Amino acid sequence: MNEVKYISSKFTPTASSFSCPKHPAKGLPPEAKSVDVLTVTAVRCQRRAYITNFPVFSAVSVLFLFVSFLFTSFGDYTGDDITVENFFAVILGDKNAVKGGSGKVVNSKPNDRIFIYYSDHGGPGVLGMPSTPYLYGKDFVDVLRKKHASGTYKEMVIYVEACESGSVFEGLLPEDLNIYVTTASSADESSWGTYCPGMDPPPPPEYITCLGDLYSVAWLEDSESHNLKKETVEQQYQKVQFLSSSNYETYNDGSHVMEYGNKSIKPEKLSLYQGFDPATENLPSNRIGFNHRMDVIDQRDADLLFLWAKYKKLEAGTNKKAKTLQHIKNTLLHREHLDGSISFIGLVLFGPAKGPSTLKSVRDRGLPLVDDWDCLKSMVRLFETHCGSLTQYGMKHMRAFANICNNNVSEEDMEEATNQRTVPVRSAEWSPLNLRGFSA
Amino acid sequence: MNEVKYISSKFTPTASSFSCPKHPAKGLPPEAKSVDVLTVTAVRCQRRAYITNFPVFSAVSVLFLFVSFLFTSFGDYTGDDITVENFFAVILGDKNAVKGGSGKVVNSKPNDRIFIYYSDHGGPGVLGMPSTPYLYGKDFVDVLRKKHASGTYKEMVIYVEACESGSVFEGLLPEDLNIYVTTASSADESSWGTYCPGMDPPPPPEYITCLGDLYSVAWLEDSESHNLKKETVEQQYQKVQFLSSSNYETYNDGSHVMEYGNKSIKPEKLSLYQGFDPATENLPSNRIGFNHRMDVIDQRDADLLFLWAKYKKLEAGTNKKAKTLQHIKNTLLHREHLDGSISFIGLVLFGPAKGPSTLKSVRDRGLPLVDDWDCLKSMVRLFETHCGSLTQYGMKHMRAFANICNNNVSEEDMEEATNQRTVPVRSAEWSPLNLRGFSA
Repeated sequence: MNEVKYISSKFTPTASSFSCPKHPAKGLPPEAKSVDVLTVTAVRCQRRAYITNFPVFSAVSVLFLFVSFLFTSFGDYTGDDITVENFFAVILGDKNAVKGGSGKVVNSKPNDRIFIYYSDHGGPGVLGMPSTPYLYGKDFVDVLRKKHASGTYKEMVIYVEACESGSVFEGLLPEDLNIYVTTASSADESSWGTYCPGMDPPPPPEYITCLGDLYSVAWLEDSESHNLKKETVEQQYQKVQFLSSSNYETYNDGSHVMEYGNKSIKPEKLSLYQGFDPATENLPSNRIGFNHRMDVIDQRDADLLFLWAKYKKLEAGTNKKAKTLQHIKNTLLHREHLDGSISFIGLVLFGPAKGPSTLKSVRDRGLPLVDDWDCLKSMVRLFETHCGSLTQYGMKHMRAFANICNNNVSEEDMEEATNQRTVPVRSAEWSPLNLRGFSA
Repeated sequence: MNEVKYISSKFTPTASSFSCPKHPAKGLPPEAKSVDVLTVTAVRCQRRAYITNFPVFSAVSVLFLFVSFLFTSFGDYTGDDITVENFFAVILGDKNAVKGGSGKVVNSKPNDRIFIYYSDHGGPGVLGMPSTPYLYGKDFVDVLRKKHASGTYKEMVIYVEACESGSVFEGLLPEDLNIYVTTASSADESSWGTYCPGMDPPPPPEYITCLGDLYSVAWLEDSESHNLKKETVEQQYQKVQFLSSSNYETYNDGSHVMEYGNKSIKPEKLSLYQGFDPATENLPSNRIGFNHRMDVIDQRDADLLFLWAKYKKLEAGTNKKAKTLQHIKNTLLHREHLDGSISFIGLVLFGPAKGPSTLKSVRDRGLPLVDDWDCLKSMVRLFETHCGSLTQYGMKHMRAFANICNNNVSEEDMEEATNQRTVPVRSAEWSPLNLRGFSA
């Protein structure tokens, strides 16, 4: 196995006019020499953890794969080129299947280690994409199986930040693929945004979005403040688990960091996956880091925070301010419509007594969200046809669709139930056809 | 203190055409000779526990006071005569303050014991009434203080069935009033309906409403199957607590029965409050009673269950069936509107990060729901003016209004926030002016 040579810790802002704050995490630097990084939408000093763009990609020992929901102007795949199909093709090293982007793929060899960091919105069983459809847990794991069968990696570590991210692997990821996964949250809880305007700690004043999330900030700030040739995967997991369980393991506004897959990878050094910066040579392998409480927001409300911060900044009486408020109101109205639609469908399918509990039912640990993932996708499409696009907020209702499948509801019954739902006044603007296609 | 002479256990149906089922609880019988009962809306074999009407009222040792939300055609106070003002006047024995009804009041003497059973919908800090406004916790406790100051009772036991019923007494009821209270649920949880159509156990087939609730059925069935000269208040509390915590202390679809006030009353025999039936002479003081699991429904959805059962029974294709479905849809739409209005107001007043957690915040045990109850009422009126009547479902949002007050939001800010809320299309039919007046 090739040794990673070095990663400099010097942080270079990616935009000349932009001065990055001390917090959030500076993240891994652009001078990476020996770690190959494939960016599927790079994340800058925006919204989430700081990851600078890594310009060069070629297959060597450690392969980074960053995925995030932000549309930015750099990275190997950006904007509409970030699709489930491209993501899978990139992982499988299938150059021919890729459409758009730089065309680079993870052309890994049997002794390579792969590190994937995926950050987006999520819901039970799914991870968000800048495009539709969502990435479904079973499809992701099937691709990982395929990658394993191709014998083109030694070990893989995957970090996933998303609401209900545990549900993407729960009961799905086997232990014999040499893949170790940690997720920001369990199968049935939100994850949390941080470094938001008005919070402690705040982002730079010119930013009106959240720049980090508890889980990502925890691992990035942990990585940059330790000697990764000494710190183990296990040690980082413990630290991230502690810091994400804000406030300090009370799970008040925090989430349970989960682990899945092959745990024998845990004693390995982090440098095998995240590289090594000589400047950290004298740093310890582990220590309690930033020990202040982080203000947080439920990730599902992070878009509202952005809109609200924008509204607050605009001059009173202007047309733009009124429009922004209307946009906020419409967003909330669509949320109400989605919630109401799910309640109504639950009532029609299971009756008023069993409807709410059936839709919310969480299966035992170790069981996948749903047995029939094709059924899940069908139900999502039926819902979106009659009740409008789920949007990122509506991802929270994926468990309802899963439970509809788990209770063997037929497509005909689901169609009838969704069809009876009262269509809202402004339904056209939330149609998946007008918006961005179906989520499944 | 006068001894209660007897209560026959024979159950007499209150309507000749009606055959009562074995379950739910038959309740206390109409032949009560020595226990005086004042019915503020009697509850029959409908919706909740069976309580037959007690025809005679005169002040002797034990005074029953039944309150329930059902409009029935018998009882001392029924329909629109059931008001907070009348309820208070009845408790205080203030004949002059009573409007309508039989005019009977609790004309109790220093050595009398009083038993009050109150059953209605509820929400944080409030109990429902067939009329508006709601009964507010602080006002209720103030009246109990006044009653105590008048020296017109020895001891009082109050049983309350309602959602969040603990919040009506939490941090409010002192221990020195010689009053012992149990409530169906804690300050921040729903209570549960039972004996509903389609459930196990079911009501008689001709009924399409729920006939009982876990808490009331538990104490009524417990009372009718024991020798109340031997069973203590404490024993009944323990039993009711166990049975309401369905399924058997797992609190899965169940609630925490709470107790407040003077606990030194607990060793007393139940007969002092609920009378005695000679037929129970040979029954034990305590035993595990009905040990089957009860199917339940969140009380807030009990009205939907009724509407749904009605819809299901109607012939397909009829105008009535279509109308009933529309009624269900409108009910759900108003629920969505209420939920959305509260979310919007939280966003405007506290921002998207702190809004949800601030509105939902539950104070520590022992603290009242709100410090300024007048503020709470003002906020309710402001909300209902701009966003429509809370209805029984909207009672769940009383905690949001309380927390708005606890965070010192001014009426001006609240007015502005509610004013900005988008008015729904069919707002007129949910206006408190068209509906039934303000809830505060």
